[in-house]
Amino acid sequence: GRWGMEAVRRGLRRVGEEARELYLNQTVPYLDRAPTPLEFHRDWLSPNRPFVLRNAINHWPALSKWTTGYLRETVGKQAVSVAVTPNGYADAVYQNRFLMPEERRMAFEDFLDVIEGRKARAGVFYIQKQCSNLTDEFPQLLPDLDSHIPWMSEALGKKPDAVNFWLGEAAAVTSLHKDHYENLYCVISGEKHFLLLPPTDRPFIPYELFQPATYKVYEDGSFDVIDVENADKVPWIPLDPLDPDLSRYPEYSCARPVQCTVRAGEMLYLPSLWFHHVQQSHSCIAVNFWYDMEYDIKYNYFQFLDSVTKAASGV
Amino acid sequence: GRWGMEAVRRGLRRVGEEARELYLNQTVPYLDRAPTPLEFHRDWLSPNRPFVLRNAINHWPALSKWTTGYLRETVGKQAVSVAVTPNGYADAVYQNRFLMPEERRMAFEDFLDVIEGRKARAGVFYIQKQCSNLTDEFPQLLPDLDSHIPWMSEALGKKPDAVNFWLGEAAAVTSLHKDHYENLYCVISGEKHFLLLPPTDRPFIPYELFQPATYKVYEDGSFDVIDVENADKVPWIPLDPLDPDLSRYPEYSCARPVQCTVRAGEMLYLPSLWFHHVQQSHSCIAVNFWYDMEYDIKYNYFQFLDSVTKAASGV
Repeated sequence: GRWGMEAVRRGLRRVGEEARELYLNQTVPYLDRAPTPLEFHRDWLSPNRPFVLRNAINHWPALSKWTTGYLRETVGKQAVSVAVTPNGYADAVYQNRFLMPEERRMAFEDFLDVIEGRKARAGVFYIQKQCSNLTDEFPQLLPDLDSHIPWMSEALGKKPDAVNFWLGEAAAVTSLHKDHYENLYCVISGEKHFLLLPPTDRPFIPYELFQPATYKVYEDGSFDVIDVENADKVPWIPLDPLDPDLSRYPEYSCARPVQCTVRAGEMLYLPSLWFHHVQQSHSCIAVNFWYDMEYDIKYNYFQFLDSVTKAASGV
Repeated sequence: GRWGMEAVRRGLRRVGEEARELYLNQTVPYLDRAPTPLEFHRDWLSPNRPFVLRNAINHWPALSKWTTGYLRETVGKQAVSVAVTPNGYADAVYQNRFLMPEERRMAFEDFLDVIEGRKARAGVFYIQKQCSNLTDEFPQLLPDLDSHIPWMSEALGKKPDAVNFWLGEAAAVTSLHKDHYENLYCVISGEKHFLLLPPTDRPFIPYELFQPATYKVYEDGSFDVIDVENADKVPWIPLDPLDPDLSRYPEYSCARPVQCTVRAGEMLYLPSLWFHHVQQSHSCIAVNFWYDMEYDIKYNYFQFLDSVTKAASGV
């Protein structure tokens, strides 16, 4: 019993260590040319390794056209969904709750006024809707970029499930989490700062259950936290990887985050189930492509790692 | 402690079950055309799923030429390595030992005399050497087949590490084990019978440590078992999947072996780390290609599954 559990814990510590010895790079590698579909599948997707591709989207008109002036002219009065928080933290743990942003519908030009400092508004504003909001809310912009990434689509034998548009303030932070997608993250202007942890570091990353709630931000800067009624608690990561509380989460000291900056014209391949924390320069514009991951042996093994992590921590 | 270990054991049972729900077929699928390199990587190698390809090697002269008459004429007096056992079980557990065959050097034509029943000899004979014995011991036969499988070599970006020649008696059995190779198994004549278990069934497959020993088979049918001196004990699977001792290994009742027959002209893709038990028709001839597996996230996860299996069983 006790001896066996000690051996289980040793195994949990070993898996992330071995990942780094066997196949992970110390830093995120930069590629100077796009991989072929086979190279992408063999060298990156199958082994679940991230990379940044330079000069990835040079042929997209968006790269030169998407100034805030052009966007204002093109999208203008259209209503879009904006995440508003008092502090920049959307979908993050705050006051022992899982706190979602206020989803505010506003004219795109009003949003740009806030971003450009023409209008003072309480709160931090971020377009980050993630359910294919580029296609749904910004159809005028579609001619300025490709609808998918050809080498990725051919490698996976399918088209993306969502194409998302991101634009927001420097204070907006995406808290540490993982997605069930193979993700291509393209920066059009400005830069994104990623902190990444491989799925094999799961044993070092704390999850807890939180009451879900949403912010309501008022014009005077005050805000309410409104609990979602009758909702199941949400498992989320309470740890801030930029300032980890190691006395509370000592196991995180074994994690080995890697950081990388993705600049205008570059693209990050973020493999499925990698934990990521994201920040950006003010008014950074990005588009990302989500391709459904395959629920195959890697997912199956990750679920096992997840279940053993929970069993060993008594959660 | 106790509660956590119970949860670990539930996780161990769940992983094989989930593999079958998510991505494994109930039986080994048969393909009618070779996959492209990308299809092979995406649909079979990356998710670690086996298949049998029909009409896989129709263009090999070997398929029509390799009669025992032609082999006798072509290889004739050349000395080859033959595994000799009293009972057909080479590299298997017997009398609480890990028993390896007597490696007998003999002229190939003498071996054929035994196979064809022209000479009575005590013991079971099997050419199964596995360290690229086709290239090393049967160079005369190389013009009769391809030196590698093009779609596999392109998919993996490398050539095979070993090409092996197999020919033996119906009584010769390959005991349940796994290899660190992506394996293409081509049957030239006769048929091979495979019993397969995915790596995710590891928790149900018992390993124990055994003193290694080799057989010495005498002309009168008697034999000795000779311990290898000063050798480390060898971890091996004592269970016979054709007649499992469930009172001794009750966990094997959760395993879900699949069986398949590979006939002349067909090729089995046996993914890395799949457990396999093999039998064949008398004088079946086969050639297999071993490509080194990648020691990437799947291997990493398997090692974790292996370590937790050991921890939970107290081995």
